[in-house]
Amino acid sequence: MKVQVLFTIPETAGVDVAGATVAVVDVLRATSTMVTALARGARAVFPSASTEDALRLAQSLGREDTLLCGERRGLRIQGYDLGNSPLEYTREVVEGRRLIMNTTNGTRAILVMEDADAVLALAFLNLGAVASEVRERERLICLCAGREDAFALEDAVCAGLLLQRLRAEGVELDPDDGARAALALAQAHEPNEAFLASTLAGRALLASELGADLAWCARVDALAVVPVLRDRMLVPLSEPEA
Amino acid sequence: MKVQVLFTIPETAGVDVAGATVAVVDVLRATSTMVTALARGARAVFPSASTEDALRLAQSLGREDTLLCGERRGLRIQGYDLGNSPLEYTREVVEGRRLIMNTTNGTRAILVMEDADAVLALAFLNLGAVASEVRERERLICLCAGREDAFALEDAVCAGLLLQRLRAEGVELDPDDGARAALALAQAHEPNEAFLASTLAGRALLASELGADLAWCARVDALAVVPVLRDRMLVPLSEPEA
Repeated sequence: MKVQVLFTIPETAGVDVAGATVAVVDVLRATSTMVTALARGARAVFPSASTEDALRLAQSLGREDTLLCGERRGLRIQGYDLGNSPLEYTREVVEGRRLIMNTTNGTRAILVMEDADAVLALAFLNLGAVASEVRERERLICLCAGREDAFALEDAVCAGLLLQRLRAEGVELDPDDGARAALALAQAHEPNEAFLASTLAGRALLASELGADLAWCARVDALAVVPVLRDRMLVPLSEPEA
Repeated sequence: MKVQVLFTIPETAGVDVAGATVAVVDVLRATSTMVTALARGARAVFPSASTEDALRLAQSLGREDTLLCGERRGLRIQGYDLGNSPLEYTREVVEGRRLIMNTTNGTRAILVMEDADAVLALAFLNLGAVASEVRERERLICLCAGREDAFALEDAVCAGLLLQRLRAEGVELDPDDGARAALALAQAHEPNEAFLASTLAGRALLASELGADLAWCARVDALAVVPVLRDRMLVPLSEPEA
């Protein structure tokens, strides 16, 4: 399998995504939140690039069963129903609802990859489920959402763990430089709460008293949902769990 | 010491460089070539952003003791005196000359950092010399030139080796996510010719029959020159060697 890892959104510029499956990673917190929301019964997550776009989409979908979700600099956007903390996305709140989500990096990363063969959302939470889903693909690109176009260690480690899993399952990898680096970084770091707390994004969450999110986002393989992009919305490929 | 590692040029966008010392890394091959040229007695290297800019500069400096140097996609630019192979930069060719250099990534990376307190060129060749030079600085940014705004493993490893050296010399590092990743990558890879040959840039050089450059660029600590940017030109901080 030809595998590429891109550490920031601008690195997508020269990349041809035709024929590729793309796993978008934003462990803290967009993809962790998307996985959680779909696992808790949300019908779909619409990634949106801007607050204007999100409001327009909310109007066209109808406001009654639609939730506006998202953050700017880690905090809920004014007038939104939910922020970007996965812990807010309980079954009571999201079941049967359509979610419009607008975050600083994660939703943008998904939209930029729209032309790929398939776009999936990857987090520590659904690592095994994504590995099972992509193992037969010919070409895989992991796009790390990063922090405002800068490198984020937790996303790189998560991408590397996915590749490690594939290799452990016998998939032969043809890695680019980014994929080799991600594999080495996954080797060098344990994916747990303490690791997340040590990253720049983790430290920012701790400073905003959002530390509880770290424990949740660190739960490797806790959920079996693979969010997949269909008609501009993320829907669960597997059935949502209890 | 506060240390940041940026893996691609676009990552510089949000970074305040005031008060920082920047080490620009383009192991294959721009910074390796700059270090070699100054070690072989070149008076100065003027990084230039475009072929037009390079020709204009050559005219204003006077053509007699000025050499036009550079590459596009690894090959010498038509009408230029030299390409980007460090092996071309012998004492006979470069001694006493001013070099105008225009490469795909490396010279651009230097120019983008112009406003920093100090800008140095780093390669495996002058790793120890750069480490000695920067060890007392308060804030260090390593900017990896990469390949056309994509991640290049050899640059990341070189940046990580510099940080390893500083740590080994007792410098206390306060690393960002990129710097932590670079340290882990330096730990995971041996800086030698085989490693360079395994990278995407190395494979491209091998395919262009420029494999001899890899052996040269892999020579850790072979030269003691630290190219430093002064008035838009790189000059040797230390005396050139034999």
